[in-house]
Amino acid sequence: MELDEIRKRIDGIDDKIVELFAERTNLSGEIAKVKAQTGKGITDGDREREIIFRLASKVPQEFTLYLKELYETVFFTSKAYQSAVMGKTSATAEAIKELIAKGFSKLPASATVACQGIKGANSGVAAAKFFPVSNIVYVKNFEGVFSAVESGLCEYGVLPIENSTAGSVLEVYDLMRKHNFHIVKSVRLKISHCLAALPTADIKSVKKVISHPQALMQCDEFIKKRGLQAEADENTAVAAKKVAESGDITLAALCSKECAETYGLKILQPDVQASDANYTRFILIRKDLCIYQGADRISVMTSLPHEPGSLNRILGRFSALGLNLTKLESRPIAGSDFEFMFYFDFDGDITDAAVQNLIAELENGSDNFVFLGAYKEKL
Amino acid sequence: MELDEIRKRIDGIDDKIVELFAERTNLSGEIAKVKAQTGKGITDGDREREIIFRLASKVPQEFTLYLKELYETVFFTSKAYQSAVMGKTSATAEAIKELIAKGFSKLPASATVACQGIKGANSGVAAAKFFPVSNIVYVKNFEGVFSAVESGLCEYGVLPIENSTAGSVLEVYDLMRKHNFHIVKSVRLKISHCLAALPTADIKSVKKVISHPQALMQCDEFIKKRGLQAEADENTAVAAKKVAESGDITLAALCSKECAETYGLKILQPDVQASDANYTRFILIRKDLCIYQGADRISVMTSLPHEPGSLNRILGRFSALGLNLTKLESRPIAGSDFEFMFYFDFDGDITDAAVQNLIAELENGSDNFVFLGAYKEKL
Repeated sequence: MELDEIRKRIDGIDDKIVELFAERTNLSGEIAKVKAQTGKGITDGDREREIIFRLASKVPQEFTLYLKELYETVFFTSKAYQSAVMGKTSATAEAIKELIAKGFSKLPASATVACQGIKGANSGVAAAKFFPVSNIVYVKNFEGVFSAVESGLCEYGVLPIENSTAGSVLEVYDLMRKHNFHIVKSVRLKISHCLAALPTADIKSVKKVISHPQALMQCDEFIKKRGLQAEADENTAVAAKKVAESGDITLAALCSKECAETYGLKILQPDVQASDANYTRFILIRKDLCIYQGADRISVMTSLPHEPGSLNRILGRFSALGLNLTKLESRPIAGSDFEFMFYFDFDGDITDAAVQNLIAELENGSDNFVFLGAYKEKL
Repeated sequence: MELDEIRKRIDGIDDKIVELFAERTNLSGEIAKVKAQTGKGITDGDREREIIFRLASKVPQEFTLYLKELYETVFFTSKAYQSAVMGKTSATAEAIKELIAKGFSKLPASATVACQGIKGANSGVAAAKFFPVSNIVYVKNFEGVFSAVESGLCEYGVLPIENSTAGSVLEVYDLMRKHNFHIVKSVRLKISHCLAALPTADIKSVKKVISHPQALMQCDEFIKKRGLQAEADENTAVAAKKVAESGDITLAALCSKECAETYGLKILQPDVQASDANYTRFILIRKDLCIYQGADRISVMTSLPHEPGSLNRILGRFSALGLNLTKLESRPIAGSDFEFMFYFDFDGDITDAAVQNLIAELENGSDNFVFLGAYKEKL
């Protein structure tokens, strides 16, 4: 057979498959209505296994796995439709609907914000991107940011979540499990390191440079070329503060422009990092659920059963609603035998009833499902 | 309609769908044969998009996404079958076939193995699980293990890859990109910490405990209950060595039983960690590709295009072959704008021609695909 001839025959088959698929989806909608009346859940694992087993006998042995794959997708889409028809709900889904009904608000122009570190820290720079006017409360560690927001000490908190070079900030991911909060915004900050020293110093007087180990690493090329001695410090802002207080013109810090300004340091050379593409994403958190205008990203976390295909299955549910996954992180659950908590970010419209239904279903189906927030990322 | 009645109708539809699906899969096999003759590749993105677009007009608007989902699966399975029919190959796939044709060998009983750390380190304990007789060469850091194997200094190397409490050893994942090596075995080691001190010490004389920060954290409950002072050290073996050399009966280390024995320390109390389920997985690496008897796990890494659904698509390809994903890790590619390298572990039979075909296809389709190895995990 010629390619065109085969393709024509495939097209004909596709027409029939699609017609049957639409008919099947409609019927599964009917099932949802019956189940809604009888209070039954959507998922019926036994029925699904039986269907696949029965159908497998009708195809050549070598197609068995393909058939299984096809029908798992049929079941995903069927459940997505049933969920839409039934209008599933849960505490979170109801809270979301209520918020949306009230109309979206805007982020206030000023706020009290908890940030980790000391004055000049990158979290503070991120806070300024969220709020034109802000009262920043610096706390010692990431846990302090969650606590300040949870206790009501600060209305908002800023946390780094991911860096384009170093990856996810795992400590923050692990702390998410222990605290009540919601993500209400995020921002991407370009991280540039300056060589900053006392106003009386110059590029020739500097012999030693201090900063966070990661900043040192990112500027390794520059440090080596200049023959500088490098020493690790707690973070870039602490390093800048030390330089400011040292009275020593042989000492310099690698820190942001804002941080150099904060401590009255002179920028001897800007942008000394090796790569120009170094970004950190920060999230803005609040205690109560809150969705601001323009929200187009959704973050959830859930544990997944320790069985083959469980990740595939949940990704399939997102995918069946056209929700594009933008980030996936997994963290072991301490004390378990390699069980994981999964964190999903996806692009999606929280006002879409189908998305709300899926959230309700996931919440009803797992004790460990948490809706982290719907928000807009500022670029 | 009653539930049973609807289900009967669905069963009838499924019979027809399956028949059409088998026919379609056969025809896509025919296409593969034609393409093999003309030297064309399997993937034809334009044709796929056209099919979905054409079919979308035949279903109600609300089914559009379900249809897209269904057909993406149809295309996965179709490509899996085409790949099987065409017998795709690549340098790695050929090397794998050659190895298999020769018959699997066994891990030798003795070997020279590179481990990170000093005598008593957990990597050394893992090495002893792989080889009854081993000459362990301790190197300073993880990079040193890769280098020792790459340069031929050691035939094998042992690296920790994942801990059930702390998660993936990200440094090792990042180093994988920079070195040539293959994974040939893995092992899960239960990590227990003992309180170990000088033979003349006893539980009452000990006032201060030193160890790796993570070990201290895992034994935090015990440390607090005993009112001990805790101090962080490089690793558990270094801490044990320090205690042995201190002559100080107020000092103790948290380390493994093996490590305490190595440095002649007395175990004052075994298993002082909070949780009983603390495992670390170690991989055994070699420079050349080598597959030992019983291999049932496959590890690969690849970068994925920065577009929606690309992760879903590759998982779908694995899934269509019945390959269960057991681990997924992603690491940012430094200098890129949040692009990621993905690491996949899945349960699969490397002697399966369909699996070899998929490897060939992935290798041919991406400059960044690396076959890390096929191996057996020792529990």
